[in-house]
Order: sequence, then structure tokens, then C-alpha cells
Amino acid sequence: MRVDFPRYVHGYSGPEARRLGDQADVLAGLLHAGTRFPAGSSVLEVGCGVGAQTVHLLAASPHIELTAVDRSAESLATARETVARRFPGAHVRWLHADLFDLPATGFDHAFVCFVLEHLPDPVAALAAVRELVRPGGTATVIEGDHGSAFFHPRSTAAQATIDHLVGLQAAAGGDGLIGRRLHPLLCAAGLREVVVEPRTVYVDGSRPGLVDGFTRNTFIAMVDGVREEALAAGLSTPDEWDRGIADLHRAAGQDGTFHYTFFKGTAVRA
Amino acid sequence: MRVDFPRYVHGYSGPEARRLGDQADVLAGLLHAGTRFPAGSSVLEVGCGVGAQTVHLLAASPHIELTAVDRSAESLATARETVARRFPGAHVRWLHADLFDLPATGFDHAFVCFVLEHLPDPVAALAAVRELVRPGGTATVIEGDHGSAFFHPRSTAAQATIDHLVGLQAAAGGDGLIGRRLHPLLCAAGLREVVVEPRTVYVDGSRPGLVDGFTRNTFIAMVDGVREEALAAGLSTPDEWDRGIADLHRAAGQDGTFHYTFFKGTAVRA
Repeated sequence: MRVDFPRYVHGYSGPEARRLGDQADVLAGLLHAGTRFPAGSSVLEVGCGVGAQTVHLLAASPHIELTAVDRSAESLATARETVARRFPGAHVRWLHADLFDLPATGFDHAFVCFVLEHLPDPVAALAAVRELVRPGGTATVIEGDHGSAFFHPRSTAAQATIDHLVGLQAAAGGDGLIGRRLHPLLCAAGLREVVVEPRTVYVDGSRPGLVDGFTRNTFIAMVDGVREEALAAGLSTPDEWDRGIADLHRAAGQDGTFHYTFFKGTAVRA
Repeated sequence: MRVDFPRYVHGYSGPEARRLGDQADVLAGLLHAGTRFPAGSSVLEVGCGVGAQTVHLLAASPHIELTAVDRSAESLATARETVARRFPGAHVRWLHADLFDLPATGFDHAFVCFVLEHLPDPVAALAAVRELVRPGGTATVIEGDHGSAFFHPRSTAAQATIDHLVGLQAAAGGDGLIGRRLHPLLCAAGLREVVVEPRTVYVDGSRPGLVDGFTRNTFIAMVDGVREEALAAGLSTPDEWDRGIADLHRAAGQDGTFHYTFFKGTAVRA
């Protein structure tokens, strides 16, 4: 059975695949720190997309038996190609499938990154993940929260572009503010020993790698990626939108600052 | 010369002194981590208030020669009493004075915590601090940013109470959103080797100590502390205000979450 998923708000274009790659590389240390799976353990990555996180999973835990699942055949092909190039010896099974269609196979661990934010029923998704993991196995879940974005100089126009992204994502059935809900969601899905930690990205002029890698090429690129949709929906005019994006770029200037918090949760199947 | 300072938005009441004490205790590990001054070094604490941070300074660096300055004689007396009780052997000089009146004495280090947010010209204050420190000496500055507060469940009424606190603080000449500006402020004051780090507080139902110590007794208490002022200013009605505070308390419930980021900066006088 194919569950009818909502549209993926960020799209599937080439620049978007690059954005996801940039984001994953810059954030790898922050998001993947502490995630190491033992050699030989079976790991399920739900919604691997273009493989942006898959390569970091394998870099940290090169000897796992990975099953990477996505519902986009195109993304999966990109992920497969990237992983084959960077980790030719890795053991990866690629599955073009929906999370809810997978048979219970008793994985040791599950990894879910930037997926729940796009789903209309994240508790159902986490409950499905729980059932795919063996008793005593773990789930690791990472999500952002666009409400954690604040910056200097402040700008109403810039904030409006972020709010429009959140609005469009909500209209598509997702939740761009899901990070703050990760703990209650994991609990509601029947998982145990739930621990959620913030992973904060702070950027100022003394951190040029993050100015480019995070503020410009990850966050601003993500927001500006919904420009046409926001204009088509009548949420903004071209001038308003461009002023907002220009103001976000000021936060990436020498005297600017930018803050964003991701949330990383781990939990155990009882 | 006595500079005419704006009103201290949080007031000077007994409950407020307790709030500051609770806050400092719960946050001590987070905010003071990494701050150790060598035995015998001369340290200036600017705006020590009731001594909430002073005791943590002394706990981490018990053998410093501390000069603690505040412009409130009453706060200073409370601080003196607290420190005498908890650190009877500490070397502390208490000065009832204004930062801008102090003679240049070449301190090894300066420590400024939750002070700049109340000042109309934080760059001038930091430049004054710079002049009080010897060349090669350091300044350590900690500030919050109320724009970093976000929570689950979301609530427009709760957000409005926070916005009113920020508005009242701005009307009093301060800036409750100053944390995000700390890096450019330290640079503009002519300090060098400026490094700013976020110090994030994340609270959920699995962290009852922080639910009480931070969400309820620090953050909500701080916001609710300006209730009468907000009502007097016509920013809110009693019903609206109480609904907002009740909604903040939901974020302190078993399924709620709360997020706040402090910023800690260090810099060197060239």
C-alpha cells in the first residue's frame, strides 16, 4: 500500500540536492556527534533522500549493515551513486519504499533525520519506526525548528520570509517548527528512555566557514528556495521577498550574527 | 559624575532577588563553565547586583582579588551579606559606584553578566570596561536574548507576554534581545580576539530540575514580574496576561518543552 504523502516542500532540484549536501557536511560534526553504531549492527535509515546524511552515518559507523529507504526513486539513485563513490566497500541495501510498507525486520537501530518535519502524522511514523526496531534497539531522530532562527540585524522583512516558509510547509502537511516537539512526539510513539538534546548553530563574522556553509548556503538557500511558491500563493511580493532575503544576507555580513537550533533525540524500543 | 541610568526593568524586590539567585544556581554550570581566573589575579565584576553571579565567580576562582561594583547600595549590601556567609575567606572589595566613574586600575580580568541588556549604550559601557582592564587582560560578558525563547505548546498569548517584557525593557532604554549582538558590540568597543559562544538551555519533562529552576522560577517569573507594568502601560489586559502566563506554564508541563539561549563572550584588551 502506498500512503499518499504530502508534497516535499523543498523540491527535488539539483541546487536543492547540493544545498542538502552542503548542509550535511557543515553540520556533520554537530549533528552526528555521539552517533556510532557497532560493526555488524543492522541500521535502518528512513527517508535517506539524496544521501546527505547517509555518508555521515557511514563515515562514523563504516561497518554497519545499512538499509536506506526513500520514497523518491530519483533521490535514492543519487544517494546510491554518492555512497558508491565515497564508500565503495559499504554494505548498503537501497529500498524504494514507504516507511509504512516495510515488513518488521528487527533492526538494531533506526536513524531518521529531517524527515518528520514533512509528515502529516509524525507520531504514526515514529510508531512505525518503533515496530521496525527489535526490542532493546534504538531510534535516533534529528529535526530542525525554524522558530529557533534569530539574527542580527533584526528585520521584519527577513522574518516574514521565514514565516512564509513555515506557512507553506504547514499547508503541505508538515511542520517546520517540529524540533521543539521532538520529546513529546517520541514519548507519544511509545518509545522509552527518550533523551532530546539541542544542537545549536551560532554564526558570527569570526566563523566564515559557517557564514557560508550554514547561514548562506543552508538556511538562506532553504528559505529562498520557496520564493516562487510564496509569490504564487500571494504571501509576498517580489520586492518584499527580495528585501527579506537581502536582510538575511546582512545577518551573514561581517557584523551580523545568526542562530539556529536543531534537536537530536534518542530512544529505545521497550 | 553620576550618569543617569534608566530604570532597572526587573525591579529590586525580595522575590526578584530570589529569582536571580535561583537562576544563577541552576545556570551556574552552563554559564560559568570555562571561566576560571588564576589565584591572585585582580577581577572586576561590573553590576554585581545581589551577588547572584558573584558567588559562582568565587566558587570557580576562590583565590582572586575581586572588586564588585554596583550602582544600587541595597543590592550591594545583599551581595556582601551573601558572599560573607558563603565565602567568608574571600577577598572582595565592594564598591558602590558607577562603571563610568571608576578610575583606570588595570584589572587582570573583567566580568559582566546580565548588565548590558539594561544599558542605553552598551558599546560605551564595554569601552569603559576595556579601559579598566590592563593591556592583555580579558573581558567576559554574558547576556541572554529573549528572542531565543520558544516553547511547546505554542501560544500567541504566551508569546505576547514575552514581547511585552522586551518592549518595556526597550522603553526603559535597554535591550532584551542583546545576546545576538554581543559579538559586534565587543568588536565595536575596540576589544580584540572576540569569541562568542551560545549557551543553550533546553527543558523538557525529563528534566524536572530545569522545569522548576529555569522555566518556572527563572523565565516565567521574570516575565510575570512585569505584569503590573504591562497592564499600567495598556499593553495587555489582566485576562490576556494571565492566559499568556498560564500558557507558559503549559510549556513547563510533562509534555511541554522550553528553549532559551544565552551568549557568552570573551575578549582581550590589546
